[in-house]
Amino acid sequence: MNTRRISDSTVRRLSGYLRHLRQLSADGRPVVSSRELADETGTTAAQVRKDLSQFGSFGQRGRGYPVTALRDALVRILGLRRQWRVCVVGAGRLGSALLGYEDLARRGFEVVAAFDIDPEKVGRSVRGVPVLPLEELEREIDMRGVEIAILAVPDAPARQLAQRLASAGVTGILNFTSTKIDPGPGVAVRVMDIAVELEGLSYTILTGARAVGTSP
Amino acid sequence: MNTRRISDSTVRRLSGYLRHLRQLSADGRPVVSSRELADETGTTAAQVRKDLSQFGSFGQRGRGYPVTALRDALVRILGLRRQWRVCVVGAGRLGSALLGYEDLARRGFEVVAAFDIDPEKVGRSVRGVPVLPLEELEREIDMRGVEIAILAVPDAPARQLAQRLASAGVTGILNFTSTKIDPGPGVAVRVMDIAVELEGLSYTILTGARAVGTSP
Repeated sequence: MNTRRISDSTVRRLSGYLRHLRQLSADGRPVVSSRELADETGTTAAQVRKDLSQFGSFGQRGRGYPVTALRDALVRILGLRRQWRVCVVGAGRLGSALLGYEDLARRGFEVVAAFDIDPEKVGRSVRGVPVLPLEELEREIDMRGVEIAILAVPDAPARQLAQRLASAGVTGILNFTSTKIDPGPGVAVRVMDIAVELEGLSYTILTGARAVGTSP
Repeated sequence: MNTRRISDSTVRRLSGYLRHLRQLSADGRPVVSSRELADETGTTAAQVRKDLSQFGSFGQRGRGYPVTALRDALVRILGLRRQWRVCVVGAGRLGSALLGYEDLARRGFEVVAAFDIDPEKVGRSVRGVPVLPLEELEREIDMRGVEIAILAVPDAPARQLAQRLASAGVTGILNFTSTKIDPGPGVAVRVMDIAVELEGLSYTILTGARAVGTSP
């Protein structure tokens, strides 16, 4: 496995390919072309071939890629052979909606806890996930082996919570707030920004670029 | 303005630069380096320069980019000088959470209506946005001039609703469901996929790549 740094854009496209390969595998399709992977992920066939060639030789010229082997390779490359333990911080509307995403567990991310300050919410369980008191964040993250946190709180406490998550030993944060967080080195951060996707739509609509099935 | 097709990855990075430039502009900063834009968006300084050079000559070698001029150029390139009219289909947990994103209007996307089938929700208004009956979708989209729809419904009705949105004249759909939709040519589609972001975190954590502030 090639572990040299590849760009965020490439990782995002690999995720897109994997998403489609999982669907094809479920459908029983044996092979897929770079053209189809490109169409499904809003890129070009040349880009697909370039991306995949960084990690080895998967396809045969003119024959396409074997679906199962390529899916397994991408699972390995993206570090998804293991199950990640995830918590959701904030059990409001957005946080609760996230707790209902059944797709996450299937894709390697097991949500094991949610945290909130609202006494009405704490002690409940949402779709099997316990809502725990925020003051126990550090202890529960440690006890439950949480590795990744999804930050679904209002903007105001986001920065401070990111620091607490980092101190508690979380190694990755998916930030749904509009506040920039800086939990320090050793903690990877990604931002979920709906406006970024809407801006992409805006560009596509105005330039008349071809509609694409998925954008990752 | 250059209108030739640029890749989804590039558009996504432009959005990331714009996000940071807006922040810098609010802070009163006059110039920004390609290095800083790169650090903020998880890419390289060379990539920033390459992306921006496609649209003109913005910076001066060694002096950085003028914040306001570059922000305005990206607003123009991404088609954000106009306000887009947006609806949210599905006023459940996720849909309601989306109605609360104040950031959207500021960034050019005005949510003018939500739709639901639940009689408990229809007729209410969530943060000033009316929740309308789904059976009036076509009529209301036409009357209110809705151009972009955010699909925040369960997976089952997603495909059919995408068709209805397309027939009603919507030109872009942001799909939050796990169902693949295919509203046909003339309708741009983007997928909001939390698992894609989590997979990106997984890769970053396992390869020990440097933590980045934002990923778009």
